[in-house]
Amino acid sequence: MKPSRLGLRPLTQEAFAPFGDVVQKQGHRPEEINYGQTLKYAGLADIDIVESGGEPAVHIYRSEPIDLPFRVEIMECHPLGSQAFIPLHNRPFLVVVAPPAEEPMPGSIRGFITNGKQGVNINRGVWHHYQLSLGEPADYLVIERGGPGENCVERQLKDPLIIENLELEIP
Amino acid sequence: MKPSRLGLRPLTQEAFAPFGDVVQKQGHRPEEINYGQTLKYAGLADIDIVESGGEPAVHIYRSEPIDLPFRVEIMECHPLGSQAFIPLHNRPFLVVVAPPAEEPMPGSIRGFITNGKQGVNINRGVWHHYQLSLGEPADYLVIERGGPGENCVERQLKDPLIIENLELEIP
Repeated sequence: MKPSRLGLRPLTQEAFAPFGDVVQKQGHRPEEINYGQTLKYAGLADIDIVESGGEPAVHIYRSEPIDLPFRVEIMECHPLGSQAFIPLHNRPFLVVVAPPAEEPMPGSIRGFITNGKQGVNINRGVWHHYQLSLGEPADYLVIERGGPGENCVERQLKDPLIIENLELEIP
Repeated sequence: MKPSRLGLRPLTQEAFAPFGDVVQKQGHRPEEINYGQTLKYAGLADIDIVESGGEPAVHIYRSEPIDLPFRVEIMECHPLGSQAFIPLHNRPFLVVVAPPAEEPMPGSIRGFITNGKQGVNINRGVWHHYQLSLGEPADYLVIERGGPGENCVERQLKDPLIIENLELEIP
C-alpha cells in the first residue's frame, strides 16, 4: 500500500499551540533594557525540565539534510521534559509532531515548515520526528532535560507517511 | 584623565574558562544519534539556575550595534544564576567580563571577540557588560534564571575603559 501523504503547513504559534512554543520575536511585545541598546522579547519557551531531578542541558545538534520524498516512519517523545530546537542557521526546516498519547495516532500527525528564523520548544510527551533539515547540514541549539530517568520513547509508525515535497497544504 | 584601553583577544574555551563556557562544537567530540542523521555535541553550557526557586527562562535579545571607540562604564552580574548568549546571526560580537568580586576590579576586566559562531554562558556572579554587537542589529537567544529574588547587580566603573578598535591584543 502506498503511504499517505503528510501535508505541510506554515509554522505559526496558533497552529503549533497544542504541541509547544514557537520561539520567535513575532507576536511578542518587547521591553527596552540596557539603556535602550536592547529589546528583550521575554519568556519565549516554557522549558519544562525539573521533573524527577532533571536539570537543563544545552547541546548543539548538527543534522544532515533529508532527501524528498521522505518517509516518516519513526517518532519519539520525552515523557520527562520539553525539548527546544533553535536553528543556528537561516533556513527553513520541517517539524513533524503528534499529540501526547500511548502511540502517535494516525490522522493526528502534523507537518510544519519554519520560516527560517523560528525555533520550536516541544512540550513534554509530544510525539515528534527528529529534526528534518533541508538543503544542507544545519546546526541547532538544543535545550532539554538532563538527569536521571528514562526520557526517550521511540515508536515505529504502523502506517508510515510520506512528505512528497515542500508544497504547502493548509486545510 | 584619558581612559585606559581595553584590549581584545580571540574568544577561546581556555581563555574564557574563569568566566564561563564558550558554546561551540569545536573541541567537543560528538556522538552519532538519530540513525546517523545527527551529530550531538552534548553538554556545552553549565546552566546554573535552580538557586532560590529559579527556573530556566528563554528570551530573544535584539541589540543595536555599538560605535567604536566604545567606553566601558557599567558592568552587571547575576548573583543567582548563569546567563547564556547564543548568537542568532553569524557575526562576531564582543564579550567584556571580570571575575566575581564585590566590584569589577580594575585590571581584571577582559575583552573577547567571538568568531561569529560562538556563544557564551556566563557563570553566576561574573561581572559582564551587556552584549556588544558590531555592525548591525543582532539577535541573541538568552538562557538565564527566571524566578524570585534580586538577580541583577549593576556597578559604575570607577575607571572606565575604552575599546578603541577591533585590533587583537593578546598578552
